[in-house]
Amino acid sequence: MNQQVEICEVSPRDGLQNESVVLSTEVKLELIRRAIVAGARRIEAVSFVNPKRVPQMADAEDVMAGVDRSLGVSYIGLVMNERGLDRALAAGVDEINAVVVATDTFCGRNQGMTTAEACDVAATLVDRAREAGIGTSITIAAAFGCPFEGDVSAERLDDVIARVVDAGADEIALADTIGVGVPAQVTERLGLLARRAGEGVARRLHLHDTRNTGVANAVAGVAAGVDVLDASIGGVGGCPFAPNATGNVATEDLVYTFDRSGITTGLDQAGLIESAGWLEEQIGRRLPSSLLRAGPFPG
Amino acid sequence: MNQQVEICEVSPRDGLQNESVVLSTEVKLELIRRAIVAGARRIEAVSFVNPKRVPQMADAEDVMAGVDRSLGVSYIGLVMNERGLDRALAAGVDEINAVVVATDTFCGRNQGMTTAEACDVAATLVDRAREAGIGTSITIAAAFGCPFEGDVSAERLDDVIARVVDAGADEIALADTIGVGVPAQVTERLGLLARRAGEGVARRLHLHDTRNTGVANAVAGVAAGVDVLDASIGGVGGCPFAPNATGNVATEDLVYTFDRSGITTGLDQAGLIESAGWLEEQIGRRLPSSLLRAGPFPG
Repeated sequence: MNQQVEICEVSPRDGLQNESVVLSTEVKLELIRRAIVAGARRIEAVSFVNPKRVPQMADAEDVMAGVDRSLGVSYIGLVMNERGLDRALAAGVDEINAVVVATDTFCGRNQGMTTAEACDVAATLVDRAREAGIGTSITIAAAFGCPFEGDVSAERLDDVIARVVDAGADEIALADTIGVGVPAQVTERLGLLARRAGEGVARRLHLHDTRNTGVANAVAGVAAGVDVLDASIGGVGGCPFAPNATGNVATEDLVYTFDRSGITTGLDQAGLIESAGWLEEQIGRRLPSSLLRAGPFPG
Repeated sequence: MNQQVEICEVSPRDGLQNESVVLSTEVKLELIRRAIVAGARRIEAVSFVNPKRVPQMADAEDVMAGVDRSLGVSYIGLVMNERGLDRALAAGVDEINAVVVATDTFCGRNQGMTTAEACDVAATLVDRAREAGIGTSITIAAAFGCPFEGDVSAERLDDVIARVVDAGADEIALADTIGVGVPAQVTERLGLLARRAGEGVARRLHLHDTRNTGVANAVAGVAAGVDVLDASIGGVGGCPFAPNATGNVATEDLVYTFDRSGITTGLDQAGLIESAGWLEEQIGRRLPSSLLRAGPFPG
């Protein structure tokens, strides 16, 4: 098993985008600042998508203008098309993340095209971002199951992985967008990714804890050699176009597990828990984090 | 990895004992009936303890008098002393479960004696139960951490395991009573148990999901060859003498994970989820089950 794993903090983007309460830019910047103080060095900060579809992200440029650029933190902006990429480049993100949904039905609902078409778009975005000198990743959404088509077979996913690898990003993420994956799938599907992608491409896992498998899947991911895990403070998160896609796995729940397992994340449990409580107050609803409720151990 | 694992349904005893709402005997019998319909063949039904300390269990004799004995289900009664054993034998349980807490402080609070003394008591209970022709198990509580002493070292636990093995029960359980364990500990500690106990003794794991590690720990347990996992419908449960010891891992959350991993439990997800909703209504508070909220997948 790896003795360390990088955790990418996604609360400012995937965490918040599905929240009906639109937070101020100042609160988003405070969330980012808190994540950094707790040790985060890679943060999915914003998305450059249609503000009519995702109002929470309408202030993406303002958020990017407000973040501290002196700390060596890499700020990621999600982009779905070239217009979004133009905005991301103008806003000065350090990396872009493009998305390809593994099933045609969900891809159509999410971005109005087939999976194959989304792969072509992602390839263009990656090419242009690389020319601009910034980092690139592609997330394969619904890699463990689709809310509309149900199971996603390993064969289907492997085909999508092959297309995504051809797009040439620095990093490829498998996303359990609706929280249906189990550890056996994580092992299998990270294996497919490793076989297709080769050593030079980082492997990342994006987990939701909808069916209580988030921590188990993360542990299986680390055992399978994953480089990066996405997580969100408080377990906030969801996808507006995926029914019941509650909560990213909570950063503090992962850090608790890894701290007690001798796996280094560079993150501070106590700071994360305190910030999860703060975020809960900002959002005004109970967040699913377990560590926020139970506290660390030993205390 | 095992291709099957037995799940022991503990909602009627460990699940309910910490609930402030005392359920009627009829509701408890309905819970047991529902577990059986969903496939449970081993049920921790009652405890024979001081009703002043655990009022929820005051009707243990009535529950045992009401359960269906024609279905091949093994009903377990928890006993702490010889008086409890007398009651259990008179009530006709199929198995007794005795408890030894791994730390002296917690053992003192739970049963008024040291760990070593509790081992002696358990040995006596096992001897007498075996003479009476019924099954026996001993649970080592706080095997992954103690609310009063903090970490429980592998060396301490190994000493306790050695004493418990000498007591000669059919089965030994390691209990994460306060939900602090992580998968790496499960692997380590089940290894200690396997080395001490030998082939003839069944190995069982009792998990609480307090810090979101329950499913991950169960998966690690199956990978390490555990024979039996305890779980409770709805994730109901706790220990009145252990602060913040919320929720056994939910039976339906485990069954979801195992169903999608090709591991057989003999339990029916849909029936468990329906019963978790029913139990939530009986208790009148939100239960922590994830499957109850999210539903199965594919639907």
